[in-house]
Amino acid sequence: MAPLLKDELDIVIPTIRNLDFLEMWRPFFQPYHLIIVQDGDPAKTIKVPEGFDYELYNRNDINRILGPRSSCISFKDSACRCFGYMVSKKKYIFTIDDDCFVAKDPSGKDINALAKHIQNLLCPSTPLFFNTLYDPYADGADFVRGYPFSLREGVPTAVSHGLWLNIPDYDAPTQLVKPRERNGRYVDAVMTIPKGTLFPMCGMNLAFDRDLIGPAMYFGLMGDGQPIGRYDDMWAGWCVKVICDHLGLGVKTGLPYIWHSKASNPFVNLKKEYKGIFWQEDIIPFFQAATLSKDCDTVQKCYLSLSHQVREKLGKIDPYFAKLADAMVTWIEAWDTLNPKEGAQANGKPKGK
Amino acid sequence: MAPLLKDELDIVIPTIRNLDFLEMWRPFFQPYHLIIVQDGDPAKTIKVPEGFDYELYNRNDINRILGPRSSCISFKDSACRCFGYMVSKKKYIFTIDDDCFVAKDPSGKDINALAKHIQNLLCPSTPLFFNTLYDPYADGADFVRGYPFSLREGVPTAVSHGLWLNIPDYDAPTQLVKPRERNGRYVDAVMTIPKGTLFPMCGMNLAFDRDLIGPAMYFGLMGDGQPIGRYDDMWAGWCVKVICDHLGLGVKTGLPYIWHSKASNPFVNLKKEYKGIFWQEDIIPFFQAATLSKDCDTVQKCYLSLSHQVREKLGKIDPYFAKLADAMVTWIEAWDTLNPKEGAQANGKPKGK
Repeated sequence: MAPLLKDELDIVIPTIRNLDFLEMWRPFFQPYHLIIVQDGDPAKTIKVPEGFDYELYNRNDINRILGPRSSCISFKDSACRCFGYMVSKKKYIFTIDDDCFVAKDPSGKDINALAKHIQNLLCPSTPLFFNTLYDPYADGADFVRGYPFSLREGVPTAVSHGLWLNIPDYDAPTQLVKPRERNGRYVDAVMTIPKGTLFPMCGMNLAFDRDLIGPAMYFGLMGDGQPIGRYDDMWAGWCVKVICDHLGLGVKTGLPYIWHSKASNPFVNLKKEYKGIFWQEDIIPFFQAATLSKDCDTVQKCYLSLSHQVREKLGKIDPYFAKLADAMVTWIEAWDTLNPKEGAQANGKPKGK
Repeated sequence: MAPLLKDELDIVIPTIRNLDFLEMWRPFFQPYHLIIVQDGDPAKTIKVPEGFDYELYNRNDINRILGPRSSCISFKDSACRCFGYMVSKKKYIFTIDDDCFVAKDPSGKDINALAKHIQNLLCPSTPLFFNTLYDPYADGADFVRGYPFSLREGVPTAVSHGLWLNIPDYDAPTQLVKPRERNGRYVDAVMTIPKGTLFPMCGMNLAFDRDLIGPAMYFGLMGDGQPIGRYDDMWAGWCVKVICDHLGLGVKTGLPYIWHSKASNPFVNLKKEYKGIFWQEDIIPFFQAATLSKDCDTVQKCYLSLSHQVREKLGKIDPYFAKLADAMVTWIEAWDTLNPKEGAQANGKPKGK
């Protein structure tokens, strides 16, 4: 079978090391184009296994391509991956961490995570009413009794959020308290996260429709020079969900699983997360209450409106949020420069093959 | 192990036939008390297998116990089951249809559905934020990174909605279109339905905390003399969810599964559902928009407020809704008479052992 959407999807991988993990993914990823975002020292050479089609950007490339606007791209944090979303010209993005391997389903078969994400993205979401048998479009499933017929067409799916077997995506306090916990529960379901409900979006195993939601997939200011880390994907998820709800787009979570091989250091994580643990108690009510006006009819307009609200409402918590609001605006400027409306080519001159 | 909550839970079964299906449930149900609500001809004798502890009510009993208020209890429709909720004196109710059998988990082991419902009810819900690893209180699971710590205590669980293997709970049009569809997908998850999200509650395999939400578990006017059937549990589910959201209570769905043995006749079902298919298009937006004031601090007050809103807003669709609004008031009057605040005994004189 021909690989699905071969010419319409890029795989974005943030990394600081040689990409040996790709060997295991070869049967699934090799037909696709990779965008590798090299974090840390740009002088270091990242080895990519033979046979993969890729472009690679290090910090020098990012600075050169974005100029002063490169300030919106984080350094020394996997948040840098969002640069890859910006330079891609494809309709779909799949992003994965380099410590994530192929998982097996309960029958022992290798899971083609990418194929499942594509299936999730190509099939509608149902955010307006809950279906108790999960994805109503799955084989052998449907809408249950009592599901309004007018809502069965669904809405376009913007995001497919996959899960993790083995090491679950826990915060530092939970890692510290449960050092031996492993996720062995294979839940055979995909579901739409209902409209009006926020969720913790993890960037480890994530796919999205760049045309529908790309400009909102900004992973914020994290890592080097910032007071916080490990909230990059969370920040993106909160913004994305509010905007999807406003624009009538769907967000799915569940299958596919990847095998997450290694827990990051909980002590290092605690240092990165420390302020976020307090801040999220205000950030989440902020996003739950955020509203977007009818004028906000594009992702960009929605995102700029959110940036104003962040400055006004969250700026009171810490000066960091004013800086973040600025960066959100810079991100949109950079996005629109690299992705002009008329489909002209971007300025990026990628390295690689 | 001693049966959980043996003296705090009643099993409510609506039926028109001999309860042979109990044989298969004997190891799980026999320690508990059964409340059997006999529908249809009261002259018929319903046989209950030896060894079960039960009380049985037929239509004559309902009329005798409730007097003129018996008009709120449906006849010739499984909606009559809610009479059993009213005469129970226990904290918890489990209700099951008599064509539901013990299902097997993927390892081939019999599923003790009742034990799982009890576990669901005794453990908190998390309606205020979505947890991507499903029930955070399950063994081997927890709250994922980005889940606000202030929300991890959860809220009390009022409802546990179980699912069905084999025959899924489809409406008549779907039954007609997919006569051979069977549900073979065992999804190993329990999840909280987020606040603000309605769901289609099926009464086939359902448990709830009667003290927390009992007076809202009214299954409406269905069947004999009514223009509609098969929306009894849906109606209860919409009311229950709005009230749980208002009072800060949780509703769970997912495990446990039962084995649903026989699809009901889709032609008969279409006749019953016909008006509901149209009406639900207005009813659901009505419940999505329904609000309860701060004064509504008990289930009864919430329910009476909903009844006023039903009369005012849905009364325009069909005179049926004015009758239903009246019945909702009658139901609460009957509930409060049989369940006086000071814990006095109800008037019911059950038959049986």
